[in-house]
Amino acid sequence: MSLLVVGSVAFDALQTPFGSTDRTLGGAATYFSLAASLMAPVRLVGVVGDDFSAADEATFRGRKIDLDGLERAPGKSFFWSGRYSDDLRTRQTLTTELNVFATFEPKLPAAYQDSQYVFLGNIDPVLQRHVLAQMRRRPKLVALDTMNYWISGSSEELAKTLRMIDALLINDEEASQLGGEHNILRAVKRIMSMGPSAVIIKRGEYGAMLFQGDTIAAVPAYPLEKVYDPTGAGDSFAGGFMGYLASQRKSSHEFMRKAMVYGSVLGSFAVEKLGVERLRTLKRRDVERRARDLVKMTHIRL
Amino acid sequence: MSLLVVGSVAFDALQTPFGSTDRTLGGAATYFSLAASLMAPVRLVGVVGDDFSAADEATFRGRKIDLDGLERAPGKSFFWSGRYSDDLRTRQTLTTELNVFATFEPKLPAAYQDSQYVFLGNIDPVLQRHVLAQMRRRPKLVALDTMNYWISGSSEELAKTLRMIDALLINDEEASQLGGEHNILRAVKRIMSMGPSAVIIKRGEYGAMLFQGDTIAAVPAYPLEKVYDPTGAGDSFAGGFMGYLASQRKSSHEFMRKAMVYGSVLGSFAVEKLGVERLRTLKRRDVERRARDLVKMTHIRL
Repeated sequence: MSLLVVGSVAFDALQTPFGSTDRTLGGAATYFSLAASLMAPVRLVGVVGDDFSAADEATFRGRKIDLDGLERAPGKSFFWSGRYSDDLRTRQTLTTELNVFATFEPKLPAAYQDSQYVFLGNIDPVLQRHVLAQMRRRPKLVALDTMNYWISGSSEELAKTLRMIDALLINDEEASQLGGEHNILRAVKRIMSMGPSAVIIKRGEYGAMLFQGDTIAAVPAYPLEKVYDPTGAGDSFAGGFMGYLASQRKSSHEFMRKAMVYGSVLGSFAVEKLGVERLRTLKRRDVERRARDLVKMTHIRL
Repeated sequence: MSLLVVGSVAFDALQTPFGSTDRTLGGAATYFSLAASLMAPVRLVGVVGDDFSAADEATFRGRKIDLDGLERAPGKSFFWSGRYSDDLRTRQTLTTELNVFATFEPKLPAAYQDSQYVFLGNIDPVLQRHVLAQMRRRPKLVALDTMNYWISGSSEELAKTLRMIDALLINDEEASQLGGEHNILRAVKRIMSMGPSAVIIKRGEYGAMLFQGDTIAAVPAYPLEKVYDPTGAGDSFAGGFMGYLASQRKSSHEFMRKAMVYGSVLGSFAVEKLGVERLRTLKRRDVERRARDLVKMTHIRL
């Protein structure tokens, strides 16, 4: 049930229609591990600067999150700031300061090198491969996230990485760009021919779809009366998805379908408050309750 | 199982990335009845001009569609033309010529006045009420479509009409506008307080949701490798939804859930070819096969 995540630990400045903050703990690996650790112990590989305080560390320490792989480098941590539109459907990046992340080279502690479930967060595809090269044996499941920056700017490196993974988790737009097709189904087929045997398309408030072989599964988003801050929803989805699979020690299609529900549920909790606030207090039983509610919404017999 | 539809029968000029036509049979009531008539006999109330030919009529006559309520008026039929973007996600209206539709006043033949399932297509809410006033008894289920034009321009008349119906079928944007909320769940709650006990939100490629009392059901769109022309997808959804309910003589929540699948399936067929072309040749067994496939995609047990 060993689950490894590699990705950004950052500080975010966020502006949403409902509130804002100048500085809060964020980053893909942060959301991922807070979400996943509700279900399985997480090993985190990333880098932070000397502005990462004991209080920041405590956010992780309260959970089953191993920080031996979290490197401390001189300088500032990755910083991102963004502003959401009134309907929360679009966001504008105001600042991206890579800081210590600019020279990040993921190094896996020896104890991490046998991890069976691996999530390669959205970083340079060369570094994503560099992580896999450090594994002592082929993990049971390698999942990967990426973004338009790498799809357009490092397509050859990304192609090499895609051949080495099992599951790709991306959004609609990224899938269209990577597959070179507006049509999602055709884009997904193209992507599958590049390597991943499973493609998970995250569609925000519209839910998510799992494509695996000839089989398709669709899971709705959990409808919320109040979405406060969409930041980290996709990373929390990935955390719920991978955390569930790791907790069950499974990677079959049947369990991937179930994992989609946990992904959707964790994504829905993440957006209920600003930053990682909601994930901090979230309990496993809240997750289970919402997972059951979500499944009820999908239940139809002809 | 008597199903009545009131709405537009029109000619459309369509431009999609894959093909175009200067003039093809269209209109909400056309798509609705072609879709619904695969499952239940349909009674159509609408108006056409003297450009509506025997060949146009034959499109309906080949199905169980009663045209006694289709008025012939001197002049031209309703004409609409539109162009779709390359990704088919947006469309631009180029022309709307109401023609004979401008003075349309729906008149129900005596034989229609006992219809148990009624679909009030997107027309003036005053006329929608005028239809209900002609019913000899309260139908089992009255469903309604509307659009931004009436929501913003005739809100009081629409409010009166909403108090008299059971189910509202609209898209995300219309729901947000009508409910005065970006958030769909809050918008739907506001809409339910205006009258309808069921609200069905059509989300195109993202599927559809049914809200009824405290219960929510989500149905995905059937993923297609080729979407040719999105025109009429929502009307075909409504046709599949109402046609199924009429065929089963049911209106309970359980059957509304099933009906969502048939709505989604008919919507998916409608977009496979230009105009109503695909619906012309569609068979009930094609519908049933796709309905079963769609349900499989939703099947998850924790």
